[in-house]
Amino acid sequence: MNIAVIGLGLIGGSFALAAKKHLTEVELFGGDKNPNHLKEAIEKQIIDHELLSEHIPQMDVIIMAIPVDVAAKLVLELLDQINDNALLFDAGSTKSSICNAVALHPKRNQFLGTHPIAGTEFSGPSAAFPDLYVNQTQILCETQKTRPDLLEWAMQFFRSMDMQIQEMDPLSHDQHIAYVSHISHISSFMLGKTVMEKEEDERTIFDMAGSGFASTVRLAKSSPQMWTPIFKQNNENILEVLGEYIANLEQFKSLLESKNWAALFRQMEEINSIKTILEGIPEGKNINKTNTI
Amino acid sequence: MNIAVIGLGLIGGSFALAAKKHLTEVELFGGDKNPNHLKEAIEKQIIDHELLSEHIPQMDVIIMAIPVDVAAKLVLELLDQINDNALLFDAGSTKSSICNAVALHPKRNQFLGTHPIAGTEFSGPSAAFPDLYVNQTQILCETQKTRPDLLEWAMQFFRSMDMQIQEMDPLSHDQHIAYVSHISHISSFMLGKTVMEKEEDERTIFDMAGSGFASTVRLAKSSPQMWTPIFKQNNENILEVLGEYIANLEQFKSLLESKNWAALFRQMEEINSIKTILEGIPEGKNINKTNTI
Repeated sequence: MNIAVIGLGLIGGSFALAAKKHLTEVELFGGDKNPNHLKEAIEKQIIDHELLSEHIPQMDVIIMAIPVDVAAKLVLELLDQINDNALLFDAGSTKSSICNAVALHPKRNQFLGTHPIAGTEFSGPSAAFPDLYVNQTQILCETQKTRPDLLEWAMQFFRSMDMQIQEMDPLSHDQHIAYVSHISHISSFMLGKTVMEKEEDERTIFDMAGSGFASTVRLAKSSPQMWTPIFKQNNENILEVLGEYIANLEQFKSLLESKNWAALFRQMEEINSIKTILEGIPEGKNINKTNTI
Repeated sequence: MNIAVIGLGLIGGSFALAAKKHLTEVELFGGDKNPNHLKEAIEKQIIDHELLSEHIPQMDVIIMAIPVDVAAKLVLELLDQINDNALLFDAGSTKSSICNAVALHPKRNQFLGTHPIAGTEFSGPSAAFPDLYVNQTQILCETQKTRPDLLEWAMQFFRSMDMQIQEMDPLSHDQHIAYVSHISHISSFMLGKTVMEKEEDERTIFDMAGSGFASTVRLAKSSPQMWTPIFKQNNENILEVLGEYIANLEQFKSLLESKNWAALFRQMEEINSIKTILEGIPEGKNINKTNTI
């Protein structure tokens, strides 16, 4: 079968490598707007061939792993061109925008919106690896709108790489993901900014930085190309969470100002219960991939 | 030689285990206000004997690894009791308070203020391991006030476990550490709080949590017993950094509100340069110890 991956970064590249690992008789085609990434993906045998526009109708599966704003446009062009038995799925971090975009397309039932909750702060083909998705959650949106045989193929593919499938409507997805992903990135970016602004002599401070700092700030290395469109598409949900986050920080600050140590203690003790919740995050959802920080 | 460790948690327990690994003919004595921790430390052979008050004058080295408020008081009692050739060092996360406390003590030159930049979010004797300090920074304060032979012994001990020694005055330490450690903890605690408040059905949201969330929120598991006194002693520095952090978040929020995507992009791109800085953090300062999240 022919599989095309559009966007050969961490997410797309890892899907290509996973397809090579788990599927038989598969030819991988790939495209990337960055010619260096395309070259690298071919050299590293992440893909077998460059994807040209004339190949599109011959593809059995097309995977889009590109910034969410580009995806919402490209998806319509691709649906126009794919053959009647092809599956097209995306892997973007927002889901309402793309699901709305395809809603009225005649080939809507050949599309599946997905969000693999997996990644590292690294990007590009060199960051891709075949086991990125092992034990990770794969969120599927509006599965009832996808043709059952194509949906079944997709689910088999995700299960073959040991992903845990979860269904969710696009609006809930975008609201929830603002809490467990988008706000973490803002928190981390701003932490990096605060520290960098302060210290003119960077070495003094960064020599003192330990694993705690590295851990909270690692998402500040994330790609602006990927994140600006996410912030744009999920603007409203993110603003809500960010407002709550700032309010909590303000409240903590006023407890520090009023030297209310008992209340600070109680608050931290309550938040500690997140331990139990985090333990419930399946194994494999670890941060091994970041141990070079 | 006789070494006593007061406070048998992650920090003290790991110093005890490192002493057993790197020193010869050493007897380890230990004390902890939590009787279960004491029992556990003996069972796990982290220490050889319970430390009783009559042992204090027979100790060659005493290591204090207890909350910083208790340390600032206990240090004076210990200095009163140690013999004239003993070394006493602490391992607290604030340094002005304890250095001020000992300033006028007749045995000031037998004390050394240290801050090992090492740790995980886990606590208690079961979290201790002998290589916690390998390649980590050890900050020493006011070394000129410690008797040269005792200072030399301490530096040899820290070097034997491959620590990287850095000297710093207590005021600078407390100011810098607010940026690279204390604010990270607040950021993480408040992130945990924001998410937990929102989600009544915890599973929905935490099933969606990936490594990015786990990484930014892991410090929210830290011990309130340890952190309340740190926030108390370093109140002023922390309030300054927290104010700057909130201001940065507010500014980011207003860019989101005004939909100024170009400015958001530029800002994230600038912060990305933290990559290069973080690469300078010595190897071993990784987050391997947290890979069970």
